[in-house]
Amino acid sequence: MQIVLVEPEIPQNTGNIARTCALTKTALHLVKPLGFSLADRFLKRAGLDYWDKVEVQLWESFGDLLEANPGAAFYLATTRAGQAYHQVSYPQDSWLVFGRESSGLPISILKSFPDTQIRIPMQDIGRSLNLSNSVAIILYEALRQNSFPGLR
Amino acid sequence: MQIVLVEPEIPQNTGNIARTCALTKTALHLVKPLGFSLADRFLKRAGLDYWDKVEVQLWESFGDLLEANPGAAFYLATTRAGQAYHQVSYPQDSWLVFGRESSGLPISILKSFPDTQIRIPMQDIGRSLNLSNSVAIILYEALRQNSFPGLR
Repeated sequence: MQIVLVEPEIPQNTGNIARTCALTKTALHLVKPLGFSLADRFLKRAGLDYWDKVEVQLWESFGDLLEANPGAAFYLATTRAGQAYHQVSYPQDSWLVFGRESSGLPISILKSFPDTQIRIPMQDIGRSLNLSNSVAIILYEALRQNSFPGLR
Repeated sequence: MQIVLVEPEIPQNTGNIARTCALTKTALHLVKPLGFSLADRFLKRAGLDYWDKVEVQLWESFGDLLEANPGAAFYLATTRAGQAYHQVSYPQDSWLVFGRESSGLPISILKSFPDTQIRIPMQDIGRSLNLSNSVAIILYEALRQNSFPGLR
């Protein structure tokens, strides 16, 4: 599995997501600009002690990532999606894409993938789940459907 | 659904969990001692703006909670469990119980529930998932099995 964070803003979230990736043998792709330095003390506290156990790739833009991975199966998390995350059948090498904490994925990216957008069911209270929790929920559903390959 | 945090230590985690509870109409039970004040500025930042949307109950001890809820279906998250969290069928009113960030649930509680302990599959890298991520993963599996009652 692959996690893609497009322009993440909050270092604690990326740190926690790196920890989840290390624990599940999941690659982590970070699309610039990031809202923090990768040397940030919060990142260190939240997850940098596993940083060497995570396969991290930095990208200048989402376009660059797309061009380098033409056949990839992308699933885009957005509160605007028509289908819920558990209604999708995830291939073993799914690319799960998440946007900024404050504003989600930009329309320019969403409109390129109209059929593979997914949302997490929740109440409307004017806010959504914490980013690292959203990643954990969708990643573990994709892993569950694939019988947790290589994990126990 | 009900989430029980036994002696949580890190306010950001409880804040994020409160947010997840608010978004899923899930009650949150906190068993003392807490590692922070409920007025903590970190808790405020992470989740206190939804605090009034979460049904929170404070307990002096896990024993008090047990006594007050004799028929409850408890599931205890522990890395030592034999069965994985997705192998369980969760009733619609499940009580999902989590221990401290540093040390998990105490043996004294675990031994009272030998058959309903659950673990989250992961690689052994000497650490486990962030507490709020663990709660999100197990809660959303329990909700998924129950067709996300009242959510959309």
